[in-house]
Amino acid sequence: MGALSRDGERLRGANPTLLDLLVELETLDRLPRSGYLLRGVPDCESVAEHSFHLALIVRLLAAREPGLDVARAVEIALVHDVAELRIGDLPRTGARYFPAGAKHEAERLAAADILAPADAALSAGYAEYEAGASREARFVRACDKLQLMIKVSVYEAWGQAGLAEFWRNPENFPDEQFATVAATFARLRERFAPAAPPAG
Amino acid sequence: MGALSRDGERLRGANPTLLDLLVELETLDRLPRSGYLLRGVPDCESVAEHSFHLALIVRLLAAREPGLDVARAVEIALVHDVAELRIGDLPRTGARYFPAGAKHEAERLAAADILAPADAALSAGYAEYEAGASREARFVRACDKLQLMIKVSVYEAWGQAGLAEFWRNPENFPDEQFATVAATFARLRERFAPAAPPAG
Amino acid sequence: MGALSRDGERLRGANPTLLDLLVELETLDRLPRSGYLLRGVPDCESVAEHSFHLALIVRLLAAREPGLDVARAVEIALVHDVAELRIGDLPRTGARYFPAGAKHEAERLAAADILAPADAALSAGYAEYEAGASREARFVRACDKLQLMIKVSVYEAWGQAGLAEFWRNPENFPDEQFATVAATFARLRERFAPAAPPAG
Amino acid sequence: MGALSRDGERLRGANPTLLDLLVELETLDRLPRSGYLLRGVPDCESVAEHSFHLALIVRLLAAREPGLDVARAVEIALVHDVAELRIGDLPRTGARYFPAGAKHEAERLAAADILAPADAALSAGYAEYEAGASREARFVRACDKLQLMIKVSVYEAWGQAGLAEFWRNPENFPDEQFATVAATFARLRERFAPAAPPAG
Amino acid sequence: MGALSRDGERLRGANPTLLDLLVELETLDRLPRSGYLLRGVPDCESVAEHSFHLALIVRLLAAREPGLDVARAVEIALVHDVAELRIGDLPRTGARYFPAGAKHEAERLAAADILAPADAALSAGYAEYEAGASREARFVRACDKLQLMIKVSVYEAWGQAGLAEFWRNPENFPDEQFATVAATFARLRERFAPAAPPAG
Amino acid sequence: MGALSRDGERLRGANPTLLDLLVELETLDRLPRSGYLLRGVPDCESVAEHSFHLALIVRLLAAREPGLDVARAVEIALVHDVAELRIGDLPRTGARYFPAGAKHEAERLAAADILAPADAALSAGYAEYEAGASREARFVRACDKLQLMIKVSVYEAWGQAGLAEFWRNPENFPDEQFATVAATFARLRERFAPAAPPAG
Repeated sequence: MGALSRDGERLRGANPTLLDLLVELETLDRLPRSGYLLRGVPDCESVAEHSFHLALIVRLLAAREPGLDVARAVEIALVHDVAELRIGDLPRTGARYFPAGAKHEAERLAAADILAPADAALSAGYAEYEAGASREARFVRACDKLQLMIKVSVYEAWGQAGLAEFWRNPENFPDEQFATVAATFARLRERFAPAAPPAG
Repeated sequence: MGALSRDGERLRGANPTLLDLLVELETLDRLPRSGYLLRGVPDCESVAEHSFHLALIVRLLAAREPGLDVARAVEIALVHDVAELRIGDLPRTGARYFPAGAKHEAERLAAADILAPADAALSAGYAEYEAGASREARFVRACDKLQLMIKVSVYEAWGQAGLAEFWRNPENFPDEQFATVAATFARLRERFAPAAPPAG
Repeated sequence: MGALSRDGERLRGANPTLLDLLVELETLDRLPRSGYLLRGVPDCESVAEHSFHLALIVRLLAAREPGLDVARAVEIALVHDVAELRIGDLPRTGARYFPAGAKHEAERLAAADILAPADAALSAGYAEYEAGASREARFVRACDKLQLMIKVSVYEAWGQAGLAEFWRNPENFPDEQFATVAATFARLRERFAPAAPPAG
Repeated sequence: MGALSRDGERLRGANPTLLDLLVELETLDRLPRSGYLLRGVPDCESVAEHSFHLALIVRLLAAREPGLDVARAVEIALVHDVAELRIGDLPRTGARYFPAGAKHEAERLAAADILAPADAALSAGYAEYEAGASREARFVRACDKLQLMIKVSVYEAWGQAGLAEFWRNPENFPDEQFATVAATFARLRERFAPAAPPAG
Repeated sequence: MGALSRDGERLRGANPTLLDLLVELETLDRLPRSGYLLRGVPDCESVAEHSFHLALIVRLLAAREPGLDVARAVEIALVHDVAELRIGDLPRTGARYFPAGAKHEAERLAAADILAPADAALSAGYAEYEAGASREARFVRACDKLQLMIKVSVYEAWGQAGLAEFWRNPENFPDEQFATVAATFARLRERFAPAAPPAG
Repeated sequence: MGALSRDGERLRGANPTLLDLLVELETLDRLPRSGYLLRGVPDCESVAEHSFHLALIVRLLAAREPGLDVARAVEIALVHDVAELRIGDLPRTGARYFPAGAKHEAERLAAADILAPADAALSAGYAEYEAGASREARFVRACDKLQLMIKVSVYEAWGQAGLAEFWRNPENFPDEQFATVAATFARLRERFAPAAPPAG
């Protein structure tokens, strides 16, 4: 959206400042995560809430994973979804209707615009995440899936139905390369995953 | 999302039936219109609500516009936003981050998938709308803008601020080719548009 | 409510114009359907959303039902609940506390007031619906029940409880005279209706 | 709605018990006050909230009003809107579409059904209120208007627009016969009423 | 918060008047009950709604309990939670982090401030409740627990999960000294309590 | 609340694990910030959203502030409000009703319990923040105020009234010791602060 003036008007043409960025970021509170929204979860997680949980999970688990740059992983988590400010949270089913790579490229461009007033290290974090270009980026990606499944577990514990398919699709599971993440997910699954339906 | 079974699970692989379509359409209630959402309108219009208003406006105004196929215009209105079921309501600011035409093509493909169980006339209506390929399609498009500005007026009358920019961007105004739409918009503007700021 | 001025004030005394009608209709977004509301469904369907779904279902099914005036059925669907703008969505349990026919008569009068600025064909559609005075009106009525049960199915698939009584009351089922509606309902029931409790 | 079983099912046929009444009353939380709802107040007052405020205002002011049976006035306030459980909160504009007195009679019948399991004194309180049949009933009625205008004031102080018409319609003002209520309303008006527009 | 002026500003320094109290009380609508909130109940009960239900339950049951001052019990119920206007609804788990008695003392002080403009009998009701200093106060306390379990039952009947622990903690059950309350709770439990898990 | 099992039940007695912590943290989404809540902001910021914004602001500004341990400041921001999971977001007006220091001590104890499964560095971050015991902690505290005023600005730009008092109370302003924070706040104030009322 860009800059916001006192009467809620967007400012045009000016180079966005750091303040413009800070103000625009507040809008992430209003963006619901589309996967929950479309499955009827009431008052579902916003992108801001998701990003908070992710950053804290990353901080907690990265400290137990040897050889990771924890601070780098945390800052990647903080910005990993900022592109949604301008693109929205495209449902997963939607990506296939775009040319291959178009969604990622759009997100990369949007994030670059949004983060233009930030320091270079931070704005580079977005692209690094999208590309999985570092061990830290891949760690955040694994934690992103872990956080998804934690939230699904919480919603199910609160009575939400229709989320079992999350447990059936291995794309939602963090990969095995990070031992701490994998172990945490294994415990989550043991405690919360629905019982398998009887075979036959 | 596709088919939904009794436990909220999506059914995979099967050809979607008419019932699958009807069930999926119910989800349009949960999709907020992103332009309002990102400007903080509480409990803002859903895509289903927008589509209802549009269809009824089209029916009301088309009856006064000579030489229009009213029934065709109404059915186009009913389906003009179904692609958002799978793509979401991409904020207007987001389209420019995609390759030229990519958003429209994605919407066309998604709508074709969603409407596959419908009769050919109806599913062709979506593409006709996107392309502005008939007078009826262009009429719906004009009414789409009129409905946007009516809703903006209502939200402002309820105390919402930060919407003045809608009144400043002529892209939000219905074009002049349909006399009834233009006249209705002129009256709306007269009653609700914010006073111009003093020159100088 | 009648006409709305820029400061949210209602305008009194003037004959309502078409614009007044369009503005008042926007308020249908805020009217929840009382049957869901009173059973605790969070963020439940608005009358506008219901009307959208009904109109689209009517369009989809009427096209498969021989000898129906599809356009007429659709426009009846679009206005079938406008009286609720002034009467509210009286819970079904409430009608019996009024003199016989009083609710229908009140709705007829309210709809006539609301739709006064519309063309005669449209405003006649409301009374036609209430009276079931045409095959199209009866078709819309059947689809109204079908849509109710589709929504109940969706809410149950999302985890809402306490809706089983809808499946137990045949008044909620579309009558058998329209083959397409009946067949769609049969498939819905097969997929979503709760299993009958064991006899005994 | 009547009795509720553990699976959310309504129980039919049985005489309602006191427990049925207590359970049904909880539903008043979900009934929004239609006057606010239709003017776009987000998350607006429920009938239960209104009834709480009314009962406490009655208790506070009745204690300063000589010769009133305070306890009687309070219990009337607690039940004065229970009929809305079955009738809904009919918008004020809607009453005129019913035969004269039909709304009051319907409310009286619904309240009698709802309150059947209560002691006679309490269920008689409803009819007493509707008829304004005692000084206590008329006092509650005056406080009902005072509470309305207090809430309007609070919503306006929070930024809601479009409520000025409440201040213009003397039907919303408590009558003058109760000095404490009148004095409190006078102070409210002084502090919160919008300035009169310039004459001419 | 204290006094509120027309532009939503708090007034400082002045002694609060009765009107200030009435205005501040309206805010109880916005305070959710933390026990439900933290367990994911959507649009959960506000403190105002809880107080309404409690006052009405007290009125209904006290009339059947010999030797109680019904009016006194009702007025205690109306104010028993006003301290939450300034303290919030501290989750039950939180009290143990404060020095013994600190929460009660804070609530007593806050209630005294809030109720300063009320008559002495009413403001004394709060302290009486907190201390359980009269039979009426203890009766309200028993009903407070009964109302909690009624609401839990309703939420469970609507599909909310994760509330079973309320049924497992006897601190949530009204004590046995008031026969009417105990009998009502016994019937509630019989109808709504989850079946005990099989032993073993 | 502690550990959560699959059926939403809290687990008792066991030492909380890291997974218990991650699950409990998700609940921060449901905790609204009381200052906004009590002033009628609809769908107001959750503690999780606030913490996200704070962490990202800290990361953005700390990078421009010489001699700060950026990573430490960010991790302090991520946990600075976790105590609210058990204590709630006590309104500012409420603290004075507790013995001096009781609120801080309660928060410290609650945070220690909550963060017990975390590494020592992280759980020490909470106490460091509360005590303002490091330059990083004080920097986070300054940014906490900046974020508050940014959010107030956004809500005002969206039409919320009644927030002007935030601009009048210097306790809400970040202190001057951090040049970047002070400069950002100065720009915010210039753009968004309400004009001073005319003197006299």
